[in-house]
Amino acid sequence: MELGKIVGNVVATRKNERLKGYKLLVAEYITPNCELKGAHVVGVDLVDAGVGDIVLIVRGSSARTAEGMTDKPVDGSIVAVVDTIEYKGNITYKKRNTKK
Amino acid sequence: MELGKIVGNVVATRKNERLKGYKLLVAEYITPNCELKGAHVVGVDLVDAGVGDIVLIVRGSSARTAEGMTDKPVDGSIVAVVDTIEYKGNITYKKRNTKK
Amino acid sequence: MELGKIVGNVVATRKNERLKGYKLLVAEYITPNCELKGAHVVGVDLVDAGVGDIVLIVRGSSARTAEGMTDKPVDGSIVAVVDTIEYKGNITYKKRNTKK
Amino acid sequence: MELGKIVGNVVATRKNERLKGYKLLVAEYITPNCELKGAHVVGVDLVDAGVGDIVLIVRGSSARTAEGMTDKPVDGSIVAVVDTIEYKGNITYKKRNTKK
Amino acid sequence: MELGKIVGNVVATRKNERLKGYKLLVAEYITPNCELKGAHVVGVDLVDAGVGDIVLIVRGSSARTAEGMTDKPVDGSIVAVVDTIEYKGNITYKKRNTKK
Repeated sequence: MELGKIVGNVVATRKNERLKGYKLLVAEYITPNCELKGAHVVGVDLVDAGVGDIVLIVRGSSARTAEGMTDKPVDGSIVAVVDTIEYKGNITYKKRNTKK
Repeated sequence: MELGKIVGNVVATRKNERLKGYKLLVAEYITPNCELKGAHVVGVDLVDAGVGDIVLIVRGSSARTAEGMTDKPVDGSIVAVVDTIEYKGNITYKKRNTKK
Repeated sequence: MELGKIVGNVVATRKNERLKGYKLLVAEYITPNCELKGAHVVGVDLVDAGVGDIVLIVRGSSARTAEGMTDKPVDGSIVAVVDTIEYKGNITYKKRNTKK
Repeated sequence: MELGKIVGNVVATRKNERLKGYKLLVAEYITPNCELKGAHVVGVDLVDAGVGDIVLIVRGSSARTAEGMTDKPVDGSIVAVVDTIEYKGNITYKKRNTKK
Repeated sequence: MELGKIVGNVVATRKNERLKGYKLLVAEYITPNCELKGAHVVGVDLVDAGVGDIVLIVRGSSARTAEGMTDKPVDGSIVAVVDTIEYKGNITYKKRNTKK
C-alpha cells in the first residue's frame, strides 16, 4: 500500500455501469514524512475519507478485494484513514481528533 | 485510476481475435490541474469517449472487469468521462455541455 | 496497452516448460509520435509481428488472456500490429502495404 | 520481490473491515548494497519483522497469496526477513544474531 | 518479460511458509545491448540459473503461473536462461557454451 493525502475529488456521470455509486477521491502520494510527492491517483473511497485525510491506498487487483467489488473496473481504493505514522523513530503524523 | 485526456486513436487490423470490435483510444495522463504529463496509454473505450475528453483510465487486470471483458487481452480501459475535478479547493476542470 | 516497435528477438533453450513454443520479441516503447523511448520489453508474439512493426503490447496478467495462455509465465504479449496512429489531429503513423 | 528495510509503521483505526488485525509496516526500498533508495511502501507483516530488519517485499496480487489473505485489500506484504545478501561476489548484508 | 543478469542471491530463514524451498536470485535489469540498468529484482529461480547468466524475468501474478506456484507469495520469477539477443540487426548477446 501507499501513503497518500486526499486532495480532491472527481465527478463523472457518464461511466461504466459497474462504477456507479462509488465516491472517487484524488489522493496525492506522500512520503512517510508527510511530504507531498506530486504524483496522484484517483481511488474509490471505502472508508468515508475526506479532504486532508492521510490514507492508505491499494492499487491493482487488490483494490477490488473489498466486499462486492470483485467485478468493478477499479484499480485504486482508499482502504484506511491513517491515525499515526512512525518513521525512523519519530511520530511524523498524528491525526487530530475530529468529531464526526 | 488515473486522469487522462483523449488525444488520438489507434487502428489495427491484424490483432488477437479477442481484441476485435473494440475502439482503441490514445490517452495522455494529466495532473489534477489538467496539465499534460507527456506519458500515454492506449485504452479500450468503454464509454464512447472522444478526442478532448477528460477521462478515467483503469490499468491492469481491473481493465478487464467490465462485462464481457474477462478474457480480453486488455490492460487499459477508459471507464468514465469526467465532468468535474476538484483539486485543493478549486474546480480545476468542468466539462462543457455538449450535445450528443 | 502501450505502443512499441519491434527491434529484436530473444532465443532461450533452457526455459520454463510452459514457455516453450512461443516466439519472444524485443519491443521498444514509442510515443504516439513514433519516437523511441529507450525502454524495452520482451513479449510473446501473438500476431506474427516482425522487426520494424509498430505494435500494441499488453502487460501483466492481461498478457495471459489470449486463448491457451492462462497458465503461461508471461507478463508481456504483442497483441496487435498497428495500421495507423492518429495523434493530436495528425496521422503520425501509417503502415506501409507489405505483401505477406 | 524487492529488498527493503523496515523503517516504521502505520496505525489506522478506521479501515476496511478486511484489513483488520494486520500489522502495517513502512519499508524503504534498498539496493543489493543496502543503500536506501528513498522510496517506500506500506506492507502487511507476515513474518514478525521489526524496525531495522532487511526484508523481502511482495507487491500486487501476489501479496494476497499467503494463507487466509485472498480477499484482503492488500498489495504489499513483508514475506521474509533476510539473513544474507550476496551481490557481485561480496556478502553485502549479514543479519546479526538476535535473541528472540 | 524483462531482460536481466543474475548478480547475486538472497538467503532468508524466517519467511512465509509458502516461500520455502525456492532459491532466490538477485537480477539486475539490462538493456538489449546488455548494459546494466542499476535496478534490481529478487526472483524465484525456475531454471537453475547462476551468477552471470542473462535471463528472462516475469513479474506480477504471471510469476506464479509455473506449476505448483499458484499460491506462492512471489511476484518475480526467473523463467528462462537467454541464449542469444538480437537487437537492431546485431547479435548483442550470445551465451558461451558451458558444461553442466
